[in-house]
Amino acid sequence: MSIIMHDLAGADPDLRFSPFCWRTRFALAHKGLPVETLPWRFTETSDIAFSDQALVPVIRDGDKVVSDSWAIGRYLEDTYPAVPIFGGPQARAHARFINAWADSVLILGIARLIVRDIFDIIDPKDRDYFRTSREGWFGVTLEAFQAGREERLAGFQESLSPARLVLRHQAFLGGTAPSYADHILAGTLMWPRCASRFPLLAQDDPVAIWFGKMLDAYGGLGRGAKTP
Amino acid sequence: MSIIMHDLAGADPDLRFSPFCWRTRFALAHKGLPVETLPWRFTETSDIAFSDQALVPVIRDGDKVVSDSWAIGRYLEDTYPAVPIFGGPQARAHARFINAWADSVLILGIARLIVRDIFDIIDPKDRDYFRTSREGWFGVTLEAFQAGREERLAGFQESLSPARLVLRHQAFLGGTAPSYADHILAGTLMWPRCASRFPLLAQDDPVAIWFGKMLDAYGGLGRGAKTP
Repeated sequence: MSIIMHDLAGADPDLRFSPFCWRTRFALAHKGLPVETLPWRFTETSDIAFSDQALVPVIRDGDKVVSDSWAIGRYLEDTYPAVPIFGGPQARAHARFINAWADSVLILGIARLIVRDIFDIIDPKDRDYFRTSREGWFGVTLEAFQAGREERLAGFQESLSPARLVLRHQAFLGGTAPSYADHILAGTLMWPRCASRFPLLAQDDPVAIWFGKMLDAYGGLGRGAKTP
Repeated sequence: MSIIMHDLAGADPDLRFSPFCWRTRFALAHKGLPVETLPWRFTETSDIAFSDQALVPVIRDGDKVVSDSWAIGRYLEDTYPAVPIFGGPQARAHARFINAWADSVLILGIARLIVRDIFDIIDPKDRDYFRTSREGWFGVTLEAFQAGREERLAGFQESLSPARLVLRHQAFLGGTAPSYADHILAGTLMWPRCASRFPLLAQDDPVAIWFGKMLDAYGGLGRGAKTP
């Protein structure tokens, strides 16, 4: 029986752009676990009320319900240890740092580059919620938050330096093969890819070259995802 | 026979303040490997010419010579696998990200807070080299680079967010016990501790609390180190 996953979608149900849902999609694919994704919109909180919270990803695996991408990663590794995404307790502990780095540095940096673009692709019924919640966090309008992005692009690219330095020495953040660390970063970069047409990386950036390999991994799961 | 390590020292040979040498000191202590440290100054490159490069740490383990803290960490783990500092290939690959983050984000951030203080504690014979090399990198004088540090302190503390987020959930970056990831961050924070009196962290910062545990670890190795 497939795992069921609620997956953030745009007005077009085939546009799947959540950086957290993509981490889970890559982890499931890594382990070869079949998944049935259900398109979900920000305001459909009643549809995931069974998870006792209001955000995706949420997975249902038989009777088991797990929300939060990091918790799902741990659940999958503990429940389906074959084809590990971590590779031991220290590797998992260290991956948590990479997860925290992506959440604190990259998510904010990318939001400042594409948040107004996201508004254009989400379902019309989500727009009031999206604008009100994000403008509350940022303290300015979506338009103001994204304004001047061309000037901020170099700073965002600079914030990827730790990944770039590592990828000079190893093929993947996980070493010779992808690990959940790669799912974290690739999942995060699926967000701008699937919600915006604004290019974030130069083609010859080692991070872009690595991301190309991640797009092709798992049968081209990322490469095949619909983009705006 | 002890491992011999060339260790950056100030005018006072007991002031040991290199963030890279401290990573190695913690890793050696973690493995219970005895070490004899030799105080070394920036301009004493002829003393480490046997390593075919000009930076410390350099270790000599019998006939084996290894330089560069990351290469030394790998060497120690491969040669003395008992009491691991990584804990498997994925953990090592993920730790490399944390090493790159410390090198690219923290080293620059800390330099902007204490570089002029370092000038005051280094050996007088090193001062021309130190000023010329650092002013060449930064494009401004040491004094200008450090100026206004009080206003930049909050930004530096913010740059530690990934570590802070992780330490909310686990005792050490390595999980339930220190790993080389902890040696990287603690070693990096030994630099301002042993070269400056400018306080970088609020006492109630989870990073400061964790650093206190690392200072006490390994028989109080960090706690006992001389400070200016």
